[in-house]
Amino acid sequence: MEKADRKTRLAVVSAMLTGNPGRVYSLKVFCDMFGAAKSTMSEDISILRGIFKKYGRGDIEVALGAGGGVKFVPAPTAQQKEEILKEIAGLLSDPSRILPGGYIYTVDVFSNPQYVTAMGDILASMFTRANPDFVATVETKGIALGFSVARALGKPLVIARRDHKITEGSVVTINYLTGSSRRMVTMSMSKRAVSAGQKALLVDDFIAGGGTVHALCEMMKEFSITVVGIGTAIVTRQPEKKQVDNYRALLVLEEVDTAAERIVIHPA
Amino acid sequence: MEKADRKTRLAVVSAMLTGNPGRVYSLKVFCDMFGAAKSTMSEDISILRGIFKKYGRGDIEVALGAGGGVKFVPAPTAQQKEEILKEIAGLLSDPSRILPGGYIYTVDVFSNPQYVTAMGDILASMFTRANPDFVATVETKGIALGFSVARALGKPLVIARRDHKITEGSVVTINYLTGSSRRMVTMSMSKRAVSAGQKALLVDDFIAGGGTVHALCEMMKEFSITVVGIGTAIVTRQPEKKQVDNYRALLVLEEVDTAAERIVIHPA
Repeated sequence: MEKADRKTRLAVVSAMLTGNPGRVYSLKVFCDMFGAAKSTMSEDISILRGIFKKYGRGDIEVALGAGGGVKFVPAPTAQQKEEILKEIAGLLSDPSRILPGGYIYTVDVFSNPQYVTAMGDILASMFTRANPDFVATVETKGIALGFSVARALGKPLVIARRDHKITEGSVVTINYLTGSSRRMVTMSMSKRAVSAGQKALLVDDFIAGGGTVHALCEMMKEFSITVVGIGTAIVTRQPEKKQVDNYRALLVLEEVDTAAERIVIHPA
Repeated sequence: MEKADRKTRLAVVSAMLTGNPGRVYSLKVFCDMFGAAKSTMSEDISILRGIFKKYGRGDIEVALGAGGGVKFVPAPTAQQKEEILKEIAGLLSDPSRILPGGYIYTVDVFSNPQYVTAMGDILASMFTRANPDFVATVETKGIALGFSVARALGKPLVIARRDHKITEGSVVTINYLTGSSRRMVTMSMSKRAVSAGQKALLVDDFIAGGGTVHALCEMMKEFSITVVGIGTAIVTRQPEKKQVDNYRALLVLEEVDTAAERIVIHPA
């Protein structure tokens, strides 16, 4: 291919990195693509890194040496986080979302790609340093969020299911009580999905009592996997004592007042 | 903010568009960000479009006039499609994936962000012109794929569930028979998630008899929604007669020979 000029190289590399977070590209890929020298591409990456930093487009991490390369890591700025979380909190505080029993309808927010991607990027940026091998979540509502965190980190998603199907292969199943209704619930995870000794980041859309996430922690123990972080989109103020305590949340649901038709939720 | 040069503008716009497929950005956003004239940004977009086309990074669509703007649409090239689908077919043909009953283990592929994003981009590019209002899928295994298609199109995802939870609000429930085991299965969808008259793109990870997707079509009828497309990652060769016929598939599963320990699967 004919040689490309710098603006072309930067535009293409920007698209490739942004479109594939966590994926390590060796400089050679870019050298071959553009007919450019390695020193030129190194300089390009350095320029792009500066541009991304200045305009809040995320980080580019460089690993030197053999097997080295560059990868993109979403890194929302404080202002970007505040803007999007305020917007989501605003949406979720609409009283028409109140459901019987004081629950709130959040399904639309957790299946809107723009919101889910933004929340996924923020959660991923909180746990980049923990360097998990995979992201684990529980079906159903949180899967898109879990996937978005996994995508932002460039790691696989592992889903624990309420039932289990033959297509999961052999599974480990645990039983636990849900915090609110004290019903016994089953959770299964495929044995093939993970290996002993790995590090897991647990992600859920909603933590109230923390029973589900606690059960997911128990599941990880069954697989001899270390939990290196717990992230949730929403945590409820009550009950104050959760079954897990080392979690990080994006939004705090202060109260759902069914009588006054009021939902109070704000960025954490 | 100080004025940015062209390479900076192209790199930032490239990242913003690629990172937010389907989202419409007015040129004014970019003008304000870079202190650039509208004519300058128009020229930038035109240059970026040419670069994306040349390097197979997707399409930039331009809508003129008030409320107009630009948006990014993933558009994998024939070569990119072939490469990634061959790679996925290669992975899936590993005989260690054979499960009892002639099923195959695909969970890891459908939760690997790189593969799921690539398949999502390809499916989305097949149905861009159908212009769906949302993407619908059935839990659980296909949710990440459905979400990726939705993300690539910049549209919401709607999930039909096997059970239903109080957090879904009011739901419509239908019963249907699964093709293989002739068990009766329930499928529920939240009333709030969709509106009559909308257009739906149905996405599933796997079509064998087509019973699930057929049921999802029936569900759409209940909501007076038009199905404008059906996309699946994998379709089985047998049975030849499916309960739906107007689907498009990425991969064809020819056979799972449990005796010979052989899986034959190839790009469609």
